[in-house]
Amino acid sequence: MWPSRAIIELFGIDVPIIQAPMAGASGSDLAQAVSAAGALGSLPCAMLDVDTAAAEVAAIRAQSNGPLNLNFFCHQETAMTAADEARWLDQLKPYFEDLGIDARGSKGGARRAPFDEAMAGLVETLTPEVVSFHFGLPADRLLDRVRAAGAKVLSSATTVAEAIWLAERGVDAIIAQGAEAGGHRGVFLGGAIENQPGTMAMVPQVVDAVDVPVIAAGGIADGRGIAAALALGADGVQIGTAYLFTPEATISSKHRDALEHATADSTAMTNLFSGRPARGLVNRLMREIGPMSESAPPFPHAGNALAPLKKRAEADGKTDFTSLWSGQGVGLGRGMNASELTLALADEALERLRRLAPR
Amino acid sequence: MWPSRAIIELFGIDVPIIQAPMAGASGSDLAQAVSAAGALGSLPCAMLDVDTAAAEVAAIRAQSNGPLNLNFFCHQETAMTAADEARWLDQLKPYFEDLGIDARGSKGGARRAPFDEAMAGLVETLTPEVVSFHFGLPADRLLDRVRAAGAKVLSSATTVAEAIWLAERGVDAIIAQGAEAGGHRGVFLGGAIENQPGTMAMVPQVVDAVDVPVIAAGGIADGRGIAAALALGADGVQIGTAYLFTPEATISSKHRDALEHATADSTAMTNLFSGRPARGLVNRLMREIGPMSESAPPFPHAGNALAPLKKRAEADGKTDFTSLWSGQGVGLGRGMNASELTLALADEALERLRRLAPR
Repeated sequence: MWPSRAIIELFGIDVPIIQAPMAGASGSDLAQAVSAAGALGSLPCAMLDVDTAAAEVAAIRAQSNGPLNLNFFCHQETAMTAADEARWLDQLKPYFEDLGIDARGSKGGARRAPFDEAMAGLVETLTPEVVSFHFGLPADRLLDRVRAAGAKVLSSATTVAEAIWLAERGVDAIIAQGAEAGGHRGVFLGGAIENQPGTMAMVPQVVDAVDVPVIAAGGIADGRGIAAALALGADGVQIGTAYLFTPEATISSKHRDALEHATADSTAMTNLFSGRPARGLVNRLMREIGPMSESAPPFPHAGNALAPLKKRAEADGKTDFTSLWSGQGVGLGRGMNASELTLALADEALERLRRLAPR
Repeated sequence: MWPSRAIIELFGIDVPIIQAPMAGASGSDLAQAVSAAGALGSLPCAMLDVDTAAAEVAAIRAQSNGPLNLNFFCHQETAMTAADEARWLDQLKPYFEDLGIDARGSKGGARRAPFDEAMAGLVETLTPEVVSFHFGLPADRLLDRVRAAGAKVLSSATTVAEAIWLAERGVDAIIAQGAEAGGHRGVFLGGAIENQPGTMAMVPQVVDAVDVPVIAAGGIADGRGIAAALALGADGVQIGTAYLFTPEATISSKHRDALEHATADSTAMTNLFSGRPARGLVNRLMREIGPMSESAPPFPHAGNALAPLKKRAEADGKTDFTSLWSGQGVGLGRGMNASELTLALADEALERLRRLAPR
């Protein structure tokens, strides 16, 4: 029925769709609803502690028998130096003055911890069918534990070179993350952010370069996009932004409102909110000091200094300092619950492929 | 046979492929070869004077009876102020010193003139079947003359808003130019370059927003890309970079060598060579002072100061100051002549669509 069954069989799913794990924007509700509709539900664990992650998985398992993807960040932790912090606070000084906030010792930015021994233990206990990593792969001793626990291993590539690197290390499938994608870029081999290829150009070049299944991500938000990704040679797709419009997404009403009014050119890649490049809706901070700034401290420390500004602005109903993650497919979002959306995406894609066939 | 016949019928072609007009990189040979294979050949006229353009069209018409697209830039001419020039020369000073060249009064950058009365007269004389514009549309009095001469009118949109603007002004079809595309961005309504959407995200949003046929451009370099563009809802494609690999392209052997060794992340958008953003292979100048710089003077004047640097570096076998236009599909290029490539692209796309059909 589907032109490729590679990831359908690899993951034991019905339709070749992965719900993108969106740390801070989705949890057990979304993963469970997607899983129930036959796609691969994903739980983002980067901002969760072990106990919360375990509770979220239990909540999913209680509702759905489908396979589950646990997603982790695997960045190298980099300390913020006093110089990093001073430079960043200096950059933000006008905002602290404007809002009448004392900048010193700001804390409360989003926790984003890399995959570690404790999380490897959790994977061994919970035995998720799939584990996906962002920012490369963890150290071999940790990766070996994930594999030994029976999980299929995925990671994201943002260039052909990153895809080859992942394939050489034996991942079971590669997510080709085109520049259109929302949230954090999976970049791990360096390279300038302005060189990052779009989905249309990248997917066929990755397909030609590796022998494992390829999952296209970035700018895919309806059945047309899924059909297009399969035409490019992908075996499946990973979809994020379209799921932000579902009631299961755990985003604020302000973020939801902003998404509703956005279109293809409403976003940019920015490093201001975490220190690493990520795509989100353009807001005041991005417009005024970014969207990319060399003043931002290393990942994930940029958020600490912003936390009090964000809190104060949000109390005034403003998202001036809030990360509003979104991919460029945002103009294709619609109001459906996550199970309905998943079924609609699959139906639309198959119908599209049927109508495209030369007669 | 093709899922949409809209542009096939609009232009009177056999396959829904437009060869991108690439000013400085293609001329009558490429247009004629593509036209002979049943696609729409394009002659870029922005860097030609009226007599040369007329001679090029005569050369094409002598070899091919197919329809022809004449392409023009239609930017507002902006003079370079003394301050603009001084700022730019100051930025480039280390290079002039390094190469031992006197910077004063540099001339010889590429001529890029907007569509004018003389060119409108040429269109009336030559009656091309199609006229495409870049950077919006010319003044009504000029556009009316093009329409009265019987030409179908095309222009490029880089955002949904630009597509709507063009549709409201009655263009016959819109080229949705995704961020992956090589050469100059067609931007004409402003907006930050880092907000420009990729092809995968942009095409379906443009298709939903306008009622005229949509031609996808950017990152499309083989049959998979064509099939994907049609899946997104486009009626056809415009392909540039793949044709740079043909012997009919009029690029230097250095440019050709650089393309052969490039991949999806070898390019960036830069304004250094003309003053307007355009995508090309990253070289020394882009790496060291760009790729985007506020020091670059208004389009098209940036090239004047670079001309002597370019000439000297090229004499030493270097492309440090040479624009090496390329889209992100560059890794998919192959050695074929332009007629063979056109036929192969069409065959591959149809075969791809056939294989995708759900059974």
